[in-house]
Amino acid sequence: MEKDKPLILVTNDDGITAPGIRTLIEVMNEIGTVCVVAPDSPQSGMGHAITVNDTLYCDKVIIDKNAPQTEYSCSGTPADCVKLATNEILKRKPDLCVSGINHGSNSSINVIYSGTMSAAVEAGTSGIPAIGFSLLDYSLNANFEPIKAFVKKITLECLQNGLPKGVVLNVNFPKLSEKEIKGIKVCRQANAHWIENFDKRKSPLGREYYWLTGEFVNEDKGEDTDEWALKNGYVSVVPVQFDLTAHHVIKDINSWDI
Amino acid sequence: MEKDKPLILVTNDDGITAPGIRTLIEVMNEIGTVCVVAPDSPQSGMGHAITVNDTLYCDKVIIDKNAPQTEYSCSGTPADCVKLATNEILKRKPDLCVSGINHGSNSSINVIYSGTMSAAVEAGTSGIPAIGFSLLDYSLNANFEPIKAFVKKITLECLQNGLPKGVVLNVNFPKLSEKEIKGIKVCRQANAHWIENFDKRKSPLGREYYWLTGEFVNEDKGEDTDEWALKNGYVSVVPVQFDLTAHHVIKDINSWDI
Repeated sequence: MEKDKPLILVTNDDGITAPGIRTLIEVMNEIGTVCVVAPDSPQSGMGHAITVNDTLYCDKVIIDKNAPQTEYSCSGTPADCVKLATNEILKRKPDLCVSGINHGSNSSINVIYSGTMSAAVEAGTSGIPAIGFSLLDYSLNANFEPIKAFVKKITLECLQNGLPKGVVLNVNFPKLSEKEIKGIKVCRQANAHWIENFDKRKSPLGREYYWLTGEFVNEDKGEDTDEWALKNGYVSVVPVQFDLTAHHVIKDINSWDI
Repeated sequence: MEKDKPLILVTNDDGITAPGIRTLIEVMNEIGTVCVVAPDSPQSGMGHAITVNDTLYCDKVIIDKNAPQTEYSCSGTPADCVKLATNEILKRKPDLCVSGINHGSNSSINVIYSGTMSAAVEAGTSGIPAIGFSLLDYSLNANFEPIKAFVKKITLECLQNGLPKGVVLNVNFPKLSEKEIKGIKVCRQANAHWIENFDKRKSPLGREYYWLTGEFVNEDKGEDTDEWALKNGYVSVVPVQFDLTAHHVIKDINSWDI
């Protein structure tokens, strides 16, 4: 391991062979010494799941013979990967953990369902600066070229400035060419939610089952939100905290008769 | 459905037959019209996972012949259960969603791993007042009797006062007799984290695998925290928000050169 080079842990939730993480590894190799610990299969929608009632496999793999990073493929969730990396695989605490690049949005309320962001939050709880990156393109063939320079810039700034304690970054990219992207905006999470429309079907044996489908509803018109930034051609950067306490309502609830 | 009685959705993450949810149903039947939509198997550590790449089963079941509630057993996660209940099963928006009573703590940072709390948060994102209840006793034979009166009291206060928008409650109970419980404290989430110790083993075929085990480390000595309350014989009530934006650091990050 070279001296002075930052040690960067890379993970994701789409699985270790997804184009998004391969792009992220490529960019991180320009910045530091890279160790990849990522799920062996897609983990979308896993939120902050951890594996408590099952065993975990974690095997060293070579996916790209000519690249400098070391890589481990793990049977668990993104949060499991970060726990395994920091407590079992890495010899020292990484200087940074990056997760993604997710195929699809993790803006607004999607942050709570996001395996990509759960990895970043998991790192954050151990005091490791962390960033989750997502591109608003669900396709497996999504084009990550236009955003590589932005990923590098944000990562370098994060390494240089550090992150306040208890905070990680949620970065989302619009699906645009590099020229069309207007810049980067630091935002708040838009106050939006999903309305589900379950698709009800019958199995060949006659048992009813459902597919979860939904509609994203954003009634938050704020120009300081991630949704506004993305719709208007900007990269959104939301600082995310994992102290979930609604400090501002403690007084209210203290007035209850309990 | 009786008029004027609140409609209460009950779910959990330990599975529909767990003693904790059976106790919660019993208490809720004293308060309102109860509909249960809960996982068919334990979902501990599932965080805010949702089922996006698989089908969901959700079948009407009768677990307690003489009880008034309707019940559905679902193959998904706690968050799936709430989505199915509110968008497919219930004819109107419930007045309250309660989740639990979890067998084990969801205090402090455990809130981010908690299936119990993810159900409450999921309800909250749809504007439904919601409470997650947890008892600090992992045992399947945990004694829920001492906390029933507290569960009822907190639920009634919540129905009467409502909850501020964007906020749900995380309620944890110490493992004490009713007499020993000193009262209820509205708290902030303690700033604690886990240090993992992976238990490395070899399968009969010689492949290495891990069990996740960990040590809970709380360096937050604040007397306004949930950990302090629980250690000192109080029920902890933490208001939890799902706007994860770290609003206080937006200005800092805006000073970066990005």
